[in-house]
Amino acid sequence: MNAAENAQLALLLEVAGTPKPGNVDRARDLPDLRFEHFLAGAVGAGLGLRAAGEGAPVGEAFEQAVAGMSQQAGGNTQFGALLLLVPLVKATAEARGDLTPEDVTRVAESTTTEDAADFYRAFDHADVYVDDPPKDAEALDVRRGSDAIPAVEERDLTLYDVLALGDEDDDVAAEWTGSFERTFWTADRLAELADSAPASAIGARTYLELLAREPDTLVAKQHGPKVAESVRVRAQEALEGGPEVVEAFAESLVEDGINPGTTADIVAAGLFVALARGEVTV
Amino acid sequence: MNAAENAQLALLLEVAGTPKPGNVDRARDLPDLRFEHFLAGAVGAGLGLRAAGEGAPVGEAFEQAVAGMSQQAGGNTQFGALLLLVPLVKATAEARGDLTPEDVTRVAESTTTEDAADFYRAFDHADVYVDDPPKDAEALDVRRGSDAIPAVEERDLTLYDVLALGDEDDDVAAEWTGSFERTFWTADRLAELADSAPASAIGARTYLELLAREPDTLVAKQHGPKVAESVRVRAQEALEGGPEVVEAFAESLVEDGINPGTTADIVAAGLFVALARGEVTV
Repeated sequence: MNAAENAQLALLLEVAGTPKPGNVDRARDLPDLRFEHFLAGAVGAGLGLRAAGEGAPVGEAFEQAVAGMSQQAGGNTQFGALLLLVPLVKATAEARGDLTPEDVTRVAESTTTEDAADFYRAFDHADVYVDDPPKDAEALDVRRGSDAIPAVEERDLTLYDVLALGDEDDDVAAEWTGSFERTFWTADRLAELADSAPASAIGARTYLELLAREPDTLVAKQHGPKVAESVRVRAQEALEGGPEVVEAFAESLVEDGINPGTTADIVAAGLFVALARGEVTV
Repeated sequence: MNAAENAQLALLLEVAGTPKPGNVDRARDLPDLRFEHFLAGAVGAGLGLRAAGEGAPVGEAFEQAVAGMSQQAGGNTQFGALLLLVPLVKATAEARGDLTPEDVTRVAESTTTEDAADFYRAFDHADVYVDDPPKDAEALDVRRGSDAIPAVEERDLTLYDVLALGDEDDDVAAEWTGSFERTFWTADRLAELADSAPASAIGARTYLELLAREPDTLVAKQHGPKVAESVRVRAQEALEGGPEVVEAFAESLVEDGINPGTTADIVAAGLFVALARGEVTV
């Protein structure tokens, strides 16, 4: 499979992995967000992912992927995952050998103001949960969508610069500015686990391990840092406690409306890298 | 979504629908054939489906779709479904209004000897279960793959002609020569059910209804007509009996290694038509 196909498959394997406490998976729909919305999101994102694989600019490919993803009624299904996958696909298509953190960092650092403008346009297509920006950055609030583009252009910010503004509070942005460290950690971990279970199952396992290592930044934004830390601790207990504890953890997250979506985004990105490097196969 | 995307989504919704007694679904893997093989098959088939949507000949698009589908370790996942979807996608792209049985029949009847040759080549990519051919048609045995092409060309058979040779014993072939009757019946039924449950759930419901109406031809080929008829009767009982009877039926089919795969193919085709006509949405 080519890079765009591996990215589409990574999106599908990520959502198929179960149990993935707090997120939609093969065995759990949420009331307004169902497994099939993620299937449709992955299909719709294909055009933008293929554009990235054919060398289109990151912003253009990302906006196209998000527009395609949004052709379903569940709302934002894979915005964060696509923000990781688009530069990874472009870097894979450009890489000479196996994809490295340096390859994707080069793509991230080469983004332009036009990429940043397309990134803002992508917010016009999907209802993405975002926190208030810092007081001095209100003009750059992504929730303004394409209305913020004049401010971005005036300050001559690239997409990398825009994400660097948010990398302390958002772990997808932190991947961009931090050599995709957790993405590659996840891929390495998936490679270790590859012989033990099918791809979607080791994706779910790695999700729990990631959740136990660092508080999810989407949970922190929506429910505060204390809740995010408590979810992290409970993920650790779930890992140590076995299937029943995992199931109880999953139930309680759904009851409390807690959705560690950023961690799922990183699993999708890690699955892509492991597929692209041939370490995980289906 | 365009026709190729709707076809890819139809493949995914079909396999996501549960319970679908005897087949892999969102809640059931078989020992060597797993849900994720179907996810990878749907991703890989994309290139051939897009070729069909862009007007490529049916045989060429079908061979490309099957080659792409086969890039996973589960073997034949969606061969029959693709044999229905490829002409449906091509017909949708060519149709002036909503897709009709006449549109797709025109595509089927316009196939050439070159389409037939590509159809035989598709068997080189996937291990498809096929019964013995009639005594006088051994040279045309699809199990010979591309080795049978000289005999096809010598007899000047189109793809439509080849499928007409098997339409008594194979319900995918019977769709080709019978105005895609069960495909459109399924689409109409899905449209009726569309407000009652999500798309994958009504797909599973319709699967059971189809299975209760006519014996599955893959089951008949693998286990004989008596077993296929008994499966039909038990599907009817399951429909009348509710969830527990359906579950028991599903368990017993898996234990006996009975796989009503042709019925699942028709559900995928029906889901495509309903999506393309906007009667079912995700």
